[in-house]
Formats: sequence, C-alpha cells, structure tokens
Amino acid sequence: MQDEKLEIMRHSAAHVLAAAVQELWPEAKFGIGPVIDNGFYYDIKTEQPVKEEDLEKIEVKMQGIIARGDTFDREEMSIDEAIKLFEGLNQEFKVELLRDLKEKGTTKISDEEAQDLGNKDDVASVYRTGKFVDLCRGPHVESTKEIRVVKLIKVAGAYWRGDEKNQMLTRIYGVAFDNRKDLKVYLHNLEEAKKRDHRKIGKEQGLFILDPEVGLGLPIWLPKGALIWRVIEEFWYKEHLKRDYDLVRSPHIGNIDLWDTSGHTQFYKDDMYQPIEVDDEKYMLKPMNCPFHVKLYKSSPHSYRELPIRWAECATVYRYEKSGQLSGLSRVRGFTQDDAHIVCRKDQVKEELSKVVEFIKEYFSAFGLNEYKVYLSLRDPDNKDKYAGDDAGWEFTQGVLKEIAEESGMEYETEEGEAAFYGPKLDFKVKDALGREWQCPTLQFDFNLPERFDMTYVNEKGEEERPYMLHRTIMGSFERFMAVLIEHYAGAWPMWLAPVQLRLISVGEGHIEFANQLATELSDADVRVEVDASDETVGNKIRKSAKDKIPWTIVLGDKEVSGEPFKIRVFGQEEELVLKRDELAGKIKEQEVI
Amino acid sequence: MQDEKLEIMRHSAAHVLAAAVQELWPEAKFGIGPVIDNGFYYDIKTEQPVKEEDLEKIEVKMQGIIARGDTFDREEMSIDEAIKLFEGLNQEFKVELLRDLKEKGTTKISDEEAQDLGNKDDVASVYRTGKFVDLCRGPHVESTKEIRVVKLIKVAGAYWRGDEKNQMLTRIYGVAFDNRKDLKVYLHNLEEAKKRDHRKIGKEQGLFILDPEVGLGLPIWLPKGALIWRVIEEFWYKEHLKRDYDLVRSPHIGNIDLWDTSGHTQFYKDDMYQPIEVDDEKYMLKPMNCPFHVKLYKSSPHSYRELPIRWAECATVYRYEKSGQLSGLSRVRGFTQDDAHIVCRKDQVKEELSKVVEFIKEYFSAFGLNEYKVYLSLRDPDNKDKYAGDDAGWEFTQGVLKEIAEESGMEYETEEGEAAFYGPKLDFKVKDALGREWQCPTLQFDFNLPERFDMTYVNEKGEEERPYMLHRTIMGSFERFMAVLIEHYAGAWPMWLAPVQLRLISVGEGHIEFANQLATELSDADVRVEVDASDETVGNKIRKSAKDKIPWTIVLGDKEVSGEPFKIRVFGQEEELVLKRDELAGKIKEQEVI
Repeated sequence: MQDEKLEIMRHSAAHVLAAAVQELWPEAKFGIGPVIDNGFYYDIKTEQPVKEEDLEKIEVKMQGIIARGDTFDREEMSIDEAIKLFEGLNQEFKVELLRDLKEKGTTKISDEEAQDLGNKDDVASVYRTGKFVDLCRGPHVESTKEIRVVKLIKVAGAYWRGDEKNQMLTRIYGVAFDNRKDLKVYLHNLEEAKKRDHRKIGKEQGLFILDPEVGLGLPIWLPKGALIWRVIEEFWYKEHLKRDYDLVRSPHIGNIDLWDTSGHTQFYKDDMYQPIEVDDEKYMLKPMNCPFHVKLYKSSPHSYRELPIRWAECATVYRYEKSGQLSGLSRVRGFTQDDAHIVCRKDQVKEELSKVVEFIKEYFSAFGLNEYKVYLSLRDPDNKDKYAGDDAGWEFTQGVLKEIAEESGMEYETEEGEAAFYGPKLDFKVKDALGREWQCPTLQFDFNLPERFDMTYVNEKGEEERPYMLHRTIMGSFERFMAVLIEHYAGAWPMWLAPVQLRLISVGEGHIEFANQLATELSDADVRVEVDASDETVGNKIRKSAKDKIPWTIVLGDKEVSGEPFKIRVFGQEEELVLKRDELAGKIKEQEVI
Repeated sequence: MQDEKLEIMRHSAAHVLAAAVQELWPEAKFGIGPVIDNGFYYDIKTEQPVKEEDLEKIEVKMQGIIARGDTFDREEMSIDEAIKLFEGLNQEFKVELLRDLKEKGTTKISDEEAQDLGNKDDVASVYRTGKFVDLCRGPHVESTKEIRVVKLIKVAGAYWRGDEKNQMLTRIYGVAFDNRKDLKVYLHNLEEAKKRDHRKIGKEQGLFILDPEVGLGLPIWLPKGALIWRVIEEFWYKEHLKRDYDLVRSPHIGNIDLWDTSGHTQFYKDDMYQPIEVDDEKYMLKPMNCPFHVKLYKSSPHSYRELPIRWAECATVYRYEKSGQLSGLSRVRGFTQDDAHIVCRKDQVKEELSKVVEFIKEYFSAFGLNEYKVYLSLRDPDNKDKYAGDDAGWEFTQGVLKEIAEESGMEYETEEGEAAFYGPKLDFKVKDALGREWQCPTLQFDFNLPERFDMTYVNEKGEEERPYMLHRTIMGSFERFMAVLIEHYAGAWPMWLAPVQLRLISVGEGHIEFANQLATELSDADVRVEVDASDETVGNKIRKSAKDKIPWTIVLGDKEVSGEPFKIRVFGQEEELVLKRDELAGKIKEQEVI
C-alpha cells in the first residue's frame, strides 16, 4: 500500500477509535486525532479516564464498526455553523478550536490541530461516521471496511493543546497497517525500541540526568556521558578543520537590538525566552548563532578571493518548548547545535553544497548510519510575497538543491510550501539500526540575514555584491544525536566512543596489583580502562561487564600474571581474541575513528 | 622603601594632586582618590574637564606643594559634622559618600570609596593639607616633603561610583616612586604594555571583536582567536584527563529554586542577572557551575571508595558588571570558567591540594609563566559567626592551606578576614613577561554547598559523612587568560599556539603552484600553514610576515623548487634554520606541547 493511502487509512482509523469510545462512553469529549508515524492517536476526555486495560474492549468495538462498513460522509459549513453544531454536541474542545480558527487563522494553531480543521478560509468541513461527527479536513476511506489491521498500543496523559496550564486529557495511541506481517514487525521493533529507550539506558549507564530543580528540558551530563560527548566533539572539530572550516565562538546572550535587526524578535518570538533586563538594556538568550556569525563577517570588508568562508561553532542555544512537549534528550529547551555558516559567491554554491552532502555522508558513516531520507523544501509558488529574497535567487537555489539531491543518489521528497520564509532547504532524516528516521542534518539558504545586515563582498570588478549564505548543521544537536546514538547502539558503544573501553577483572586478591599495573600502563597509552577488583565471583564480574556492554573484558589470573597472552572477551561476539600485552593498546587504538 | 611606606606616600600624593587641582580650579569638586598599583588616581569634576595637556601645569603645582612641605593634619568628627563641613565646601560627592556611610555602613560602599572614609562607626576623619581638606582615614606622610618621585600619567573619563547613570568625572592617574630609576623602569614597562594591549593586538591579528549591538562585555571570537582558544582547551582537557579528572557538562540557565537552595539568590544576588520568566517559573543565567555539579553528585549515593571525585568543566558563566567597569577581555560579562570541583574525604584533602598546586605550576609553565604570588585568605577570627561551616572544619582547612603554601616554596601573603563566607582560599597571581601580576588560579574550600545540599558519602563504618568540597580554577577564565597571553607574548604566539605556524612566500608567478603543493602537504600533516601569493615584492612579504609575528616564514623561489633545503626565518631570531622538505612538519610538531 502506498504511503498516502496508508495515511488516509490511519486517519480514518482515528475516527473509528473516537466512534468506538463514544459508543462506550457517550459523554466523551474529543480533542484532536491526527495521524502519526505508523498510526494515529486521539485525545479524549471521559469522566473516568480511559485506562490501559480498557484498550481491549475499545478495540473490539472498533472491529465491530469496521465490520459494519460505516461510510465517511463529508459536509461543509461556515465556521459559525460548525460552532453551533459542536456546541449542540457538547464538544467543547472542537468549539474552542473553531473559535481560534475564526479569530486567528490556521497559522496560529498547531499542525496537529490543523489536521482536524477544514483548511479553506471560513469553511469548516465535518465528517459523519455512523453516529460520530468530527471536525476534519479529510480525506478518508470510503467505508470503515477498508481499514485493514488496527491495534491500540497505549494510553498517556496529554495536556490539551500541549499546554500544562490546560486540563489533562487521555491520549489513546493506535497503529494501522496493510497486513498482519507489518504489524508484527512493528510490534517487534516497538519492544526493541523500549529496551533501547535513551532515557532508560542513560540512567543505567550514568550518562546524564534530568532534574526538575535544575529546570525542565535541561539535561546535565555525568562523566561517562560527558566523555562520549567530548569524543564526538573532538571528532567533529577535526573533521571540520580537515575540510577547511574555521572555528568561531559566540556568547549565549545578545542585546535585543541584534535580534531586532535579524528579525528574530518578529518571526521567531514564540520560540524565544523572555528578555533579561540589564541596566536599561534587554538581552535575549540566543535561539540561534547566525546573527553573531554575521556580525563577525561584518567586522571587516571581504573580497571575492576570501570566499567561501566556512564558520563552524558548537554552541548551546535555548528555545522555548511547552513543558508537555519535552522528552528526554530528544526534545529539550537548551541544546548544543553543531552549527556552521557558509558564505560564498554564486559560482561556488553548487560545489559548497556537494561538499556538505559528502561531509554528511562521511560523518554519519563513522557512526554506522548510512541510510537517509531527504526532504527538499521549496517555497509556495502561489505565495511568493511571503518570502525574503528575490525570484532569481529562489529559482537558482531551489534548482541547485534539486540537482544536489538528485546527484547524491539518495531517496528524496519534494515539499512545496515547506521552505522557511528566508530560504529553501534540504533536510536529512537518518535511519537508525531499527529503521527509525531521525531528523538530523539540515542545509538551508538564507536570503533574510544578508539583506537585513547588508552583507556584501567586493567582486572582481570592485563592486559590492551580496553573497549567498547557507546555514548548515550535521548532527542537528549534540543532545538529540546522543539520543539517536544511545538507541542506535542500544548502549553498546563502539570502541572509539565507549567511555570504558576495557575492563580488567582480577580473579583473586593476588591479581589485583597486576591488574592495577596493567591499567596504569594502558591508561598512559590513552586507553580508557577500569579494574573490577570487587569481592564478587569471576562469573558475576564477567556477567556484569557484559551487562555494562564494555567492548573488551579481560580476566586476569595466574596465567596472565605469569606472562601468557590475554584472552579478550569481545562484547557481542562469540570467539575470544588472543593478544599479547604489548599489542593491547595498539589494537584498541586501531578501532578509533580519531 | 617598603611596600607599606610606598602606599602611604602614594596615598599622600593623591591629596597633593587634589590640592594642586584646587589651586588651579578653585571650583573643582572631588570624588575619590585611592591608591592603585604603582600610584594613585583622583576623580575630579571641573567646569571645563581637565585634559591631557593640563597635566604638566598640575605637576608643576604639585612640585610646589611638595617643596613647601605642607603637613597632613588629622581631625576627627561625627559624620553629621563632616557632612556640614563638606556642604560648606561645596563638595557634593564627599557629602553623598558620607550620607551613604551614615545610612548603609561601610559594607555598602566600594573598597575604593572606603579608603576615603573614616572607618570607625559614626566617626569621620578629615585631613587638611594647606588649604585642601579631604575626607580620609589616612595614614599619610608627615609632610609633603616626604613625597619622592611623582608623575602624572593620563586622564580618563570615569562615571561617579562606576555607574553609567551618574555623571562623568575626570580621573587623573599618577604614579609615585622612591627614586627616579624605579620611575624609569615603570615608564618603560608602561610603553611596552601599551604596545602589548590585548585590545590593540586582538584587533590587529583578528582574534576577537566587541560590538555594542551584540552587547556589552560579550566578546565574539574570529577564526584565529577561536583556534587559539581551541588549542588551549584541548590542552586543558588532556591535562585534566591525564590527572584523573572526569568531565561533566551543565546548562547555562537553571531554575531559581536551585539558586535559592544554593544560597546564590541571597549572597550573590548583585552579581546575577534578572530572572527569565518561563511559563510560571523563573530561570537564572548561571554565575557559577557549582550547584549543577552538586546535583550530579546527589544523583547517586557515594561510597568512601569512590572519593576523591574530580569533576571538570569549561563553562561560560554570566555575571553582572557595571558597564563602566568593562574592559576588553579582562573584565567581561560572560566568561568561560575552567572550573573543577573536588569532593574528597578529610584524609585526602592535603594530597588533593598538593596535586592541584603541582598542576597549576605545570600548566602555567607550558605558557612560559613560572612566577607567582600567592594569597592565603583566612576568616576573620573576631567574626566567626559570619561564616558557614564549623570551627573544626575551618581550623583544619586553613591549616592545610598554610602547609601547602609553605611547602610549595612560593612567596605568599596571609590575609585575615579575606576568606569567602563559605571557606578559606588560596589565590595565585601569575607574573607575566613584564612582571605584571594577573589573578588566575584560585582554590577554595566550600562549607556552604555541602551543607545546603546535604552532600554525603558512606564511610568505612557504613555511616553517612559530609565530604570536603573544593572549587578550583586554573586559568580563571579563558577570556582573561587570552588577555594575559596576548600581552605576555605581545602577540608573538609560540609555535603550539600560533593560529598560523608557517607562512610560505612565493617569489614569482612560477612558484605559486609549488607553494600551494607544499602547503597542502603540510596541512595534511596538521601544520597550520598559509601561502602569501600576493603581488607584493618579496621584501614586503617578508616584512609583513614579521609584522604578523608568524613563527616561521619560508621564501620559495627557483632553488627551493629545484629541491634545495629550505631556509626558515624564525620570528624573533637572527639566524635562519635550514631544513629539508620532509623535516618541516616534524620540526614544527616537536615544538607543540600537545
């Protein structure tokens, strides 16, 4: 089944879920019910909240509705009429959405909410399925019979509209597939994903903590997590310097004047924190690094000969997220962007883009991530005046991005109208070991900042010309990339990233000194080594090392002390490795990427 | 002459300066006139501000007063009487200081201001020198005749009480010495210091910028500066990992609850920024990292076997400074502390301290900084209740710090009453190439946070015990240390820190390709190399390379292209170095510290 058809089926299944709930709890009030990856959810309020154990009976009811073959009947009406209709049905949440739509237009409601609304101005569309009436822009399947394999997965609390000031609804999650086999694969991956949950592994391995007294969405990093971070950061810097990027550094706050000039206080206001008053001035926590890099560019005149300029910085930015949206390391309020800006001439644009795409591929392959899905976001051709920059610039950059996407040989989708107002972009979703997609690299043209800050260079003819500016991130953020890696590796860090590369296990009292000597020797050779000299049995110590997913484990007893070669237990591998003392460090270093 | 006597002389010279100004500008209003390094200043308001060119005539007048041998006559009176006296003299600034003293006590006025005030409660002391009357706690020389060599240095604008909301006064700077020779050395160093000013060199070399639209006291770093930073940072990390420190990471903001628990919102309020409102919570920009590290400590129980814990982080903290106090990189509002916290048992305290002192010495010696002056700050024995922690803890830590200071063999001074309320400390002032002292490392015990956060570990007997906690920084901050290094090296970066290590100069068109090839080869071997292929003459290019203080410069002509060894011009050295092509990278790498 095509993706699009699957989506329609899943969306229809959300209606069936709501219809089933309504049959069981006639007083139920419905929030929103959008499609998500693999399925759908619906936010519902019932007098007694729906519980995990209710899911089976809801599912049975859904099967009944599906078997019955109810049709989806569309009806259009004015927003005012729709308000009246849902008031009559006692559906307060739908009424609120409609009122908001009327007052503020679709741009002021969330994407998920928009799915539930008619998207033509002043017209709301309503679907009826049996007795259930929903506000929805469709489309749907013709009849519920077309819905194939459905399963409800879990319930969770969800604040109405993601705002913790609102009441808590129950979110019922379901999935829908074309066939049983796809469902089985999904459920297996779900189980696997639970085991790999980065919050769970993060705790087990002592990588990071989240503490409400520290603040929401603000992870702090324990030694093992901070060490992995540092190794990645070093790798990132080396790879950038190798590719002729220069480093720059900027502060975490900036005068509001800067953000007024850049336009952030207008177009990015909702993602920014409240200002900090300092004497008579206002300072903003930075949500982006761009204006600082532009200021550096502006601090001296530039000739065409100096271009391209590639300026990179790993910098923590702060963006507001509703507290209900925060999740582990994937959705935080402060995150460290691995940012770079490329400023170049028109004739350099294509080569620079190719280099970035090459860089992305090489970078991710070091982590065993080699599959991508690419999204090319273009401007809405019917609303050109919504965007910064001129037609020629857009035509050119959109064209080059398309060429790049095609030449890269990667699967890509074009999304019209999805460009930022300041320029077109190429987003990369990276597939992890479970085939899940994670949004990481992004590559965006910017027509806005060069105009607002009047960035120029002097061309061959001695005239001032506007350069092209490109925002680019590889990992997206360290925090989210750490989440990706934890789940991708399921906590079994490869040698080059492992905070502990080698654990030495002493058999008895008499072997501890030898273990410590060896550890010092290896540590001097930059190996990250740990000694387990506890009173546990050797068997328990070996099991613990495997549980901790340490890449290499060596048991040290009489034989080893007397000079015999070491037998190395390699994590995730059956056969042991045999190495002499002076080979150990070298063999470990061989496996390091940097 | 002893330091103390010199200070008294310098302080007396400030009065003579004021007296001279009063003779020349009878309407002059006087602010404060404290002693500073090598001399003194006086903040003065005249109808027409005093200018650089007025200094000579003021100096002549001062010489007259000194020759006259006016005495310094002390008089004590109540604050109210003093207010009346200075009102009569039309000295509004003195009156303001006295009113403040009356209202708030000496703790609410600055150290410099306090120098100008009688320090006994309710009593102000006043000195008369000829016709000039000043509020002052003394002491002074007996007669102006005792003032030896005096010279006025410069004038500068200074906001009254350092607050840019107040009016701008003129600050006249002077120096005073025991003899002409000391003055000569001072003037030579002053000239040298001007050449080395980090703001000047920072601009010339393109290291950093300060931009008012970005914000006050918020430097942003250009590629060359950011590269030096990165090399230092890498060195710092390696040296820490080598010494069994672990890395941690914390965000730049924290919930106000955290700062309430730590006590910062009480005792450190004036140095912190206004809160950021987020939903119903308040967040503070962090002025310190400590509470985050404590939170990490508290995230799991600890056994005596795990101690000492050494947690290091290079993290940018934000502290309020009055805008009038900001200066280049030395005094900023956001700075990156090279921070570490050591948590240990009592029996580990001394060894940990010794290790830190050893570390400091080794670290600074890598930068050619080998001279220190150490200041041991103890609590005020007459005001024990002002401090956190118990008597036994203070006795013990003060004792150990003293032992450490003595055993280190470094010159040190004991300052009673100078300890922070949370614990005693050891401050290191590092002497640069001009013999100037820079406050860099500090080593502080903390009795406050372990109590407030109830930090414990389980001792050998299975009981909970309070550990000792030590704050420690080596460089103090990256920003200030960069200022120190720029001025210490006068911009002539040693090979391991130089953003460009080697410049290749092509003689003619025909040698450019060879230069580029060689550059690529060296760059692949991690040498930071640059080609000057401009149209300038070879002589000009050589001069430019010397002006840019590039460590090595090689001119590439026919001989070099044909395979002859390279002649290397080494910055600051007469003789050239001769090396073969395949020796170049190795010889450069040899000079690298990391």
